[in-house]
Amino acid sequence: MQRLTYIEIKSEIERVLKSVGFSNEKSDVLSSIFSENNLVGKESHGLNRFPSFIESVKQGRVLVNSRPELVSSFQAIEQWDGNLGAGPLNAMFSIERACELAAEFGIGSVAIRNTNHWMRGGSYGWRAAELGYISICWTNAKPTMPAWGSSEIKLGNNPLVISVPYKPDPIVFDAALTQYSYGTLEVLNRKGEKLKYDGGFDRDGNLTKEPEEILETQRALPIGLWKGSGLSLVLDILAAVLSGGKAVNEINKQGNEFGVSQVFIALKPDAFNNSIKVEEVVEKIIDDFHESLSIDNSEILYPGEQSSRQRQNNIKNGIFIETELWEQIKKM
Amino acid sequence: MQRLTYIEIKSEIERVLKSVGFSNEKSDVLSSIFSENNLVGKESHGLNRFPSFIESVKQGRVLVNSRPELVSSFQAIEQWDGNLGAGPLNAMFSIERACELAAEFGIGSVAIRNTNHWMRGGSYGWRAAELGYISICWTNAKPTMPAWGSSEIKLGNNPLVISVPYKPDPIVFDAALTQYSYGTLEVLNRKGEKLKYDGGFDRDGNLTKEPEEILETQRALPIGLWKGSGLSLVLDILAAVLSGGKAVNEINKQGNEFGVSQVFIALKPDAFNNSIKVEEVVEKIIDDFHESLSIDNSEILYPGEQSSRQRQNNIKNGIFIETELWEQIKKM
Repeated sequence: MQRLTYIEIKSEIERVLKSVGFSNEKSDVLSSIFSENNLVGKESHGLNRFPSFIESVKQGRVLVNSRPELVSSFQAIEQWDGNLGAGPLNAMFSIERACELAAEFGIGSVAIRNTNHWMRGGSYGWRAAELGYISICWTNAKPTMPAWGSSEIKLGNNPLVISVPYKPDPIVFDAALTQYSYGTLEVLNRKGEKLKYDGGFDRDGNLTKEPEEILETQRALPIGLWKGSGLSLVLDILAAVLSGGKAVNEINKQGNEFGVSQVFIALKPDAFNNSIKVEEVVEKIIDDFHESLSIDNSEILYPGEQSSRQRQNNIKNGIFIETELWEQIKKM
Repeated sequence: MQRLTYIEIKSEIERVLKSVGFSNEKSDVLSSIFSENNLVGKESHGLNRFPSFIESVKQGRVLVNSRPELVSSFQAIEQWDGNLGAGPLNAMFSIERACELAAEFGIGSVAIRNTNHWMRGGSYGWRAAELGYISICWTNAKPTMPAWGSSEIKLGNNPLVISVPYKPDPIVFDAALTQYSYGTLEVLNRKGEKLKYDGGFDRDGNLTKEPEEILETQRALPIGLWKGSGLSLVLDILAAVLSGGKAVNEINKQGNEFGVSQVFIALKPDAFNNSIKVEEVVEKIIDDFHESLSIDNSEILYPGEQSSRQRQNNIKNGIFIETELWEQIKKM
């Protein structure tokens, strides 16, 4: 492990992106998103995924010269084609466009098809909040869990993001619909550690905390059991219907995950000409929330607050990067 | 237990509503919503709640002569005041208004403050789907669970509804953010039965399937553990910000649950002038979903499908009503 600055990381990532054919402008935005994910402590969605991202570029699943293209629009809703461009670029474009629509209509929806993995969904919620907008965004994905009551992997973990502008740092809820990601299961399995809570079903169909067994059965637990199973299905339907793009079952047929469908809804919280001060409303709720009695003296944090702290800390002290991964990237 | 027809139930409910002062028109709509909830098999959100609904009318927390009033609007988003009217009437009004906005703008949002419990959220998702719209709706509520890591009840179960038009019956996801409702915990506790899955924390802070212990600690489990805790908070913030109404912590200060805040977002799935047939997109997804291999030969159903079947069955055979409850209502 070594500590690097944001600029050191971003420069190296930017160099690699240019070397595989991304324009200067695209390399700048993409490297910011990857590096920012490490800056906020989400290395699982930052540099850890960079080698496989570059691999998907080399294999032609992510196209370096693509731009999103407007397919159809009706007032405050739009349908775009991501043309298999880099997921983070398409997603950043989409949330910014949704905010523009919200500026005009109070609310706006951008659905994009044929796009790619957005890495960390929180990036786009954060961006909307930074621009002063509420956001509700989600993506579909390749299937990673069975429907409730089934043993057959058919549902995506379809991460859902909801964000609200707040200072100094926005409130950003960002959660996949499996209780634990396969990434987490693999990390704990390698370490020989158990999950703290049930994360899926074992060979006998019982709930288990053993990552190894879940990796074998592939029966990861949806959040809220039958509830997360239902939520995953409806988010997939909405993404496919609104974007005109692929649903989870069609992504599955491709073998690899590419050409996914995403939805970005933005709302303008200060659209109304009245006396309600948005920041004051949010502050009252957060103040009360922060006063929650803790069971173990650890602080009760709102969604995104841990990331904000990690960000401040990493700006000051540098970002931990695994040496092996860093060496791998430097050689790319 | 006895079986009654929908018309028998609706007439009796309508009579009581008129007797406490609701107009003929309001009594008609309200009695339909209550009776429909029993028709689809959700008696927990239908007649079971009718006596306490009438009590809240008598105590002046629900006002019979109120109508929702437009507070502020900006293009596709509106803010309404429910003026403490009956929750189901205000909610039905709000979703229909959101659909009108979606007809004009492709998407529309109606946020309503000072409203009351909407009983079964699925009613409004169903209505939007019936009108041909996608809907995303949620409500806040009195607090019923602690934030993750806390023992202090500060978060609402804030039910979330997402619906999609589909035939013969719409797809309606409708879930509170506690794994089990307190209603379910109480029913099982009276029967001396355990929960099938963990539903909250016991006195020692361990997860438990014993309803009695959860009723004592009041530490009901959020869906997805820390994830449901975060989702509850952000849905509350959005409801308060968009409606300008009360947040969960302010509802709590009142002692009783009234004057809650709700959001109704509708989207027009066929707004785009292109060749994509919405029904066909949904049908392909549902067909694939239905083919899921079952672990115990029971059918894998989409959200709302069980309600639809129950509805068909109850139309044919009548609706089971507890005799004691029915006698109580007849005497009102």
